[in-house]
Amino acid sequence: MTKSLFPFLILLITFAFTGYGQEISINSDRLHESLMKLSSYGKNANGGSDRQAYTKHDIEARAYVKALMEDAGMQISVDFAGNIIGRKAGKNPSFKPIAFGSHIDEVPNGGDYDGPVGSMGSIEVVKTLSERGIQTDHPLEVIIFTNEEGGVVGSRALVGALSKEALQVVSSSGFTQYEGIKLLGGNPDRIPELKRNVGDLAAFLELHIEQGGNLYSEKLDIGVVEGIVAIEWWEFSFLGKANHAGTTPMNMRKDPMLPAAKFVLAVNEIVNSYEGRHVGTVGKIQAFPGAGNVIPGEVKMTLEIRDLSSEKIWEIYSQIEKRAKSLASASEIGLDIKHIEVASKPALADPMVREIIKSQAEKLGFTTKSLPSGAGHDAQEMARIAPMGMIFIPSKDGISHAPDEFSSKEDIANGANVLLKTILELDSKLR
Amino acid sequence: MTKSLFPFLILLITFAFTGYGQEISINSDRLHESLMKLSSYGKNANGGSDRQAYTKHDIEARAYVKALMEDAGMQISVDFAGNIIGRKAGKNPSFKPIAFGSHIDEVPNGGDYDGPVGSMGSIEVVKTLSERGIQTDHPLEVIIFTNEEGGVVGSRALVGALSKEALQVVSSSGFTQYEGIKLLGGNPDRIPELKRNVGDLAAFLELHIEQGGNLYSEKLDIGVVEGIVAIEWWEFSFLGKANHAGTTPMNMRKDPMLPAAKFVLAVNEIVNSYEGRHVGTVGKIQAFPGAGNVIPGEVKMTLEIRDLSSEKIWEIYSQIEKRAKSLASASEIGLDIKHIEVASKPALADPMVREIIKSQAEKLGFTTKSLPSGAGHDAQEMARIAPMGMIFIPSKDGISHAPDEFSSKEDIANGANVLLKTILELDSKLR
Repeated sequence: MTKSLFPFLILLITFAFTGYGQEISINSDRLHESLMKLSSYGKNANGGSDRQAYTKHDIEARAYVKALMEDAGMQISVDFAGNIIGRKAGKNPSFKPIAFGSHIDEVPNGGDYDGPVGSMGSIEVVKTLSERGIQTDHPLEVIIFTNEEGGVVGSRALVGALSKEALQVVSSSGFTQYEGIKLLGGNPDRIPELKRNVGDLAAFLELHIEQGGNLYSEKLDIGVVEGIVAIEWWEFSFLGKANHAGTTPMNMRKDPMLPAAKFVLAVNEIVNSYEGRHVGTVGKIQAFPGAGNVIPGEVKMTLEIRDLSSEKIWEIYSQIEKRAKSLASASEIGLDIKHIEVASKPALADPMVREIIKSQAEKLGFTTKSLPSGAGHDAQEMARIAPMGMIFIPSKDGISHAPDEFSSKEDIANGANVLLKTILELDSKLR
Repeated sequence: MTKSLFPFLILLITFAFTGYGQEISINSDRLHESLMKLSSYGKNANGGSDRQAYTKHDIEARAYVKALMEDAGMQISVDFAGNIIGRKAGKNPSFKPIAFGSHIDEVPNGGDYDGPVGSMGSIEVVKTLSERGIQTDHPLEVIIFTNEEGGVVGSRALVGALSKEALQVVSSSGFTQYEGIKLLGGNPDRIPELKRNVGDLAAFLELHIEQGGNLYSEKLDIGVVEGIVAIEWWEFSFLGKANHAGTTPMNMRKDPMLPAAKFVLAVNEIVNSYEGRHVGTVGKIQAFPGAGNVIPGEVKMTLEIRDLSSEKIWEIYSQIEKRAKSLASASEIGLDIKHIEVASKPALADPMVREIIKSQAEKLGFTTKSLPSGAGHDAQEMARIAPMGMIFIPSKDGISHAPDEFSSKEDIANGANVLLKTILELDSKLR
């Protein structure tokens, strides 16, 4: 066979086995290549990614992403919040767009997959459709959100939930959000104008790595996200009496370290005593003044609880609070509790969208698991205005926000194919 | 009776009841006045003392102290280490001096008694002797040591235990010890020349507040110090796996906070399981990275144990180490232990000196208790070259190194009288 006939033959065979339109699938090699290319922007000496929002690396990567989106046949714009939006017209211009996307910014010394998988996966989906000459009924919109890691800035802006004060917060780039958005070509003063309202989008989808270890450890292909958990934070301070560690006899101490230690164990015990997938964490602990030769006067800790149900969080919390009080009073130690406003309500996925993700994944032969997202995502903001769905793929060892964050090429392709199929199914179902 | 006769009459009555030479006692009002005057140097808005070594306040206070010493009939000199030394000749110039003293520098925001009681008490003792025209057989030496709080600098210099490296340490004044000593009129380059050797002093005595709560809570007058405890320090690090607090299920965590909390409780339990007056403290604890939304990868703690016996410290430590290892391995968490060199060996008081302090205190009608000093003192350094004794007076609520450090005027006078009597007894006994 001559060289020139070979590609044509392959195309014929592919068509014969897959059937146009029915067995359409993304190009895994191309997707992987774009992901690897993206990861070169901001790669550091640890193998981690330093592509924080508004940095040189972020700005250069965005230029690459825009070029890819154009190549996929999209009309590109950058909104006032710096979100990159790629549009592909639908057959029916009266239909609201089906939107999907993610982010390409990373935490300092982060990984290559948290954000990029959904961003590159979304572009690959449109590229695949364009390549096949498929036009959906609904317009399609790929959104690459501004500074997800620094407070879901772009998606909050898009749903009208970004306060003026939030714009003055200094991001990890050193720039305020306000300054950073300008650097991306946005116009922070006009952000209120870009607000989308309920009904403006037919649906919003986000493909993302799980970041946890459920899918990976259970060797499952696809996670169907039930929703993004609510988060509550508290600060617990046990207050004793700072004193000289040499001259104060053991029986005369008012050492807050002891009830604090018991508290750490109680949090774990109480959190584990409830059935479910909630989590509770003491991530920060510090003794004050904090010297080896001083009995601390204060031990301060954070408590974080996450669950899809705010009621359950507060139910667990009430048990923890009760225990903390009894630990403090039993050791004649003071206790100060502060509830920290993080304003993170649960964001539930749309049941119909969840069902489509699940059924499309299963049609592709993938094993699935329904699970909450313990981490925050742009999808949680988009859920305020549109039926939302998230597709998770496995994260090796559940690691994220670190250089050894990893998802396999195959899992990434699987996720992008589920995204593609879900979009097509939504396109035919939503009217 | 006319006004002019009154003081004379009082004097007569006093002599009649006390008997010159036998019932000699210090002037409590004068001592208290000098203490209060001293405390005015560096008094801050919290009521605390900011008279750190080498500061303006320290330097001004030293001028006051020198004037007081001169007034008490001493020959003043400042040695190469900045120690103020006041000498009063003895009848027998071949006898080695009986030395006594303390320090006037304070920790930042410290109190008015830790150091000053012994310093002003020593000067008052000499003033009393001079006033009465009493000349001891031994020469007397009052030493006001340089920067006790910043590492017993002056006493270490005096016994040849101050390294060149220690001179480069930055003190809490912001000056290095080297610079600071120059500011006091010392000559740090010539410190090796001032070294005293074993036998150069007949004895060394230090009057000091207890800093702990033993005497105060038991309503006892005088503490007879058995010695200054040895101190050992360790750093314990429990090493888990830092991970996302939202996405990592409870059963997939490697959270070092749990064995760390159990360790804190184990230290307390093991330390209390031994009889005696040793103390064990976890004064510092910190989680890394230390964010409310991150399961820590590491929890680091200090362990300090103090006792008069190094053997006992290591015996207790071995139990703690064993427990730490079993806690770590039970939770599949790594453990890293570092022994920190603090080079603080126990310094035992001289048995004969202890006995004299006790018997003189009892002769004065005071209740006494033998106890270790849990804090470090210049006396611990002086014990390297001379028979050492320390006299403790009660500290209200055991508080020290804080603005509310307090000892009563009466307790201070009692301590100074015991010091005076002990010196006179040593003077007659030591040959």
